Amino acid sequence: MGIEMNPIGFVSTDRKDIPRSWKVSDVEGNLVLDEAYVEGLGDIKPGQRIYVIFHFHKSPNFTERFMRIKPPVHDRVVGVFSTHSPIRPNPIGLSLLEVLGVEGAVIRVKGLDMLDQTPILDIKPESEPWKD
Amino acid sequence: MGIEMNPIGFVSTDRKDIPRSWKVSDVEGNLVLDEAYVEGLGDIKPGQRIYVIFHFHKSPNFTERFMRIKPPVHDRVVGVFSTHSPIRPNPIGLSLLEVLGVEGAVIRVKGLDMLDQTPILDIKPESEPWKD
Repeated sequence: MGIEMNPIGFVSTDRKDIPRSWKVSDVEGNLVLDEAYVEGLGDIKPGQRIYVIFHFHKSPNFTERFMRIKPPVHDRVVGVFSTHSPIRPNPIGLSLLEVLGVEGAVIRVKGLDMLDQTPILDIKPESEPWKD
Repeated sequence: MGIEMNPIGFVSTDRKDIPRSWKVSDVEGNLVLDEAYVEGLGDIKPGQRIYVIFHFHKSPNFTERFMRIKPPVHDRVVGVFSTHSPIRPNPIGLSLLEVLGVEGAVIRVKGLDMLDQTPILDIKPESEPWKD
């Protein structure tokens, strides 16, 4: 039984040379969410970090040959679940990005490792704001 | 255009009193993955932490009334994207769990905040193993 997800917005960036991971990225760009979600974004603040869950929309379908892979920065083959490979059983990506600002339904972020037009599925706080 | 996801396995736990967040949970349980993925799990080690992305399969559909909510541990209403509420536009959960052991397609974990039979969509390392 499949579970259907729908994009809540899309990544927008002019950059073509997107780093492989947010851990090594200082690329800035926008998360352009659907206007319907403006009220849900109201407590996101500059300086905090957010988890962005997204769809690897350009990835080929996962098959057995992607079960164990050699990541670009590693010298041995490892299981897909020990990597952030974009080719995985469910094509879900996870990045932890710094918020630079929020204006309406647009979140300006730093640390992008997603391609332009990547569909965004969810945003969650790294820390719940009342814990900070 | 919907994006279809399929469970790669399910949570298994006897506990009924599941804490609201992995941050305050010491509940142990199993992530029982499909046998097809055994080879993909081979590099997950006891002591490491893994991100588990899962389906909030018991949540009601998201509607406008869940856009801003009062979390149980907070005294004011905040936007859904500043919370880990199980009622969100795409019913995707994210937990960071400690690995106690791996045996075949079963990962023993600590920190569970998911109900028994929760569908698991993805597992990713908190740190890539070659960075540790």
